[in-house]
Amino acid sequence: MQNIFDNDVFFDGYKSLRERDDNMNDLLEQPAMKKLLPDLVGKSVLDLGCGYGHNCVDFVKRGATKVVGIDISKKMLEVAKEESSDAKIEYKNMSMTDIESIGETFDLLYSSLAFHYIDDFKTFAKAMANVTTKGGTLLFSQEHPIITATVDGNGHFNRDENGNRISYTFSDYNRAGKRTSRWFVDDVVKYHRPFGHIITALADAGFMIEEVVEPVPENWAVEKLPTIVKEYIKPNFLIVKAKKI
Amino acid sequence: MQNIFDNDVFFDGYKSLRERDDNMNDLLEQPAMKKLLPDLVGKSVLDLGCGYGHNCVDFVKRGATKVVGIDISKKMLEVAKEESSDAKIEYKNMSMTDIESIGETFDLLYSSLAFHYIDDFKTFAKAMANVTTKGGTLLFSQEHPIITATVDGNGHFNRDENGNRISYTFSDYNRAGKRTSRWFVDDVVKYHRPFGHIITALADAGFMIEEVVEPVPENWAVEKLPTIVKEYIKPNFLIVKAKKI
Repeated sequence: MQNIFDNDVFFDGYKSLRERDDNMNDLLEQPAMKKLLPDLVGKSVLDLGCGYGHNCVDFVKRGATKVVGIDISKKMLEVAKEESSDAKIEYKNMSMTDIESIGETFDLLYSSLAFHYIDDFKTFAKAMANVTTKGGTLLFSQEHPIITATVDGNGHFNRDENGNRISYTFSDYNRAGKRTSRWFVDDVVKYHRPFGHIITALADAGFMIEEVVEPVPENWAVEKLPTIVKEYIKPNFLIVKAKKI
Repeated sequence: MQNIFDNDVFFDGYKSLRERDDNMNDLLEQPAMKKLLPDLVGKSVLDLGCGYGHNCVDFVKRGATKVVGIDISKKMLEVAKEESSDAKIEYKNMSMTDIESIGETFDLLYSSLAFHYIDDFKTFAKAMANVTTKGGTLLFSQEHPIITATVDGNGHFNRDENGNRISYTFSDYNRAGKRTSRWFVDDVVKYHRPFGHIITALADAGFMIEEVVEPVPENWAVEKLPTIVKEYIKPNFLIVKAKKI
């Protein structure tokens, strides 16, 4: 996996985006994820792509007794160690695809908006199954497949004469594979997978799907950012909760 | 559920569509469904929305010892009884939502392109779970949620200057509910559900998702109908295979 995440321009861009109070993660994705969290009292958690470690701290507050946060970005982990340190949290600078090397199993595998960077999801799903305790939970969000679909990156909302978003145009949904786009920097590589590929890979690996959510905003989020009603036209996020069987 | 299916115009229109050798069911949906069929030797099958009964005959050929085909259309069942009769097949004129009244369980619940007519899918999923033998299979296809999404029915492909389809425009994906469109006759009522609603309802009802497929055409289908490559832009069908736990 490339490591654009330590590129200064990317790092600073991402950081300032997350600090904006109208960012979609805080308005939509994180509230939806929190609703799906299992009881964490006495549990162990592996946070895949933990970034600044804010969720790791939250897991400890919810009663988790051991949290391992991994991220490929050294810079993000530096922030995590500063802002989100706790005796129960261990941060590791490593790729998500190497999780079996940790040599432990966890009660919860958690990941916020990182899996669209994984190339071989079938193999990765099996690795995840190997590090999840039997009966444990996998909870992750990723960019919605409708967003990652379009090969030339030109998926877009269409607007009416007043500038309101009314529809969304995409292509290449059933062409799984690499997508290169600009996000703060050029050549950010993601991988598009149709829904079916994602769900089938998880089922094959030994996960029982419990819930699939394409979140819509709650009233407070619409009040804060009225244009977020665009989520009713086309969702930004796909969230999956599954149980290791 | 309304019964447009016995309307003469609808019935004749549907019949002539299915008789065309470029119809999408035979080129794409049925081949994908057949690949997912479990072993049927000695098994019982309930075919929901069996239409002309062609699949019921196929199930018997594959070794099923008992097949019940239900359909809301009396006219279609008349054709079924004529073209697809067998001592092992029983046809019943009834709504899919009444399946619990049959008072039996089946090893396979099968349905081709009928579930988008179901209003309350949560309740229906529970009814299906009640008539599926433990360890049995649910296999169904329906119109893909991207197709059923747009409230005004104006979801559409966009074309380049040579008339080739290049992208697809839709809206209202996250607005679940009734959709009224014209298909041979006016006011055909279908129900749109985002992908997550479908999968979560099945999981809640006691089905373990095994496979989700958004089929793409095989080479022979592309040779027969070159424009079918549009399925790579936007899928027509959603297929789900699940196990009753």
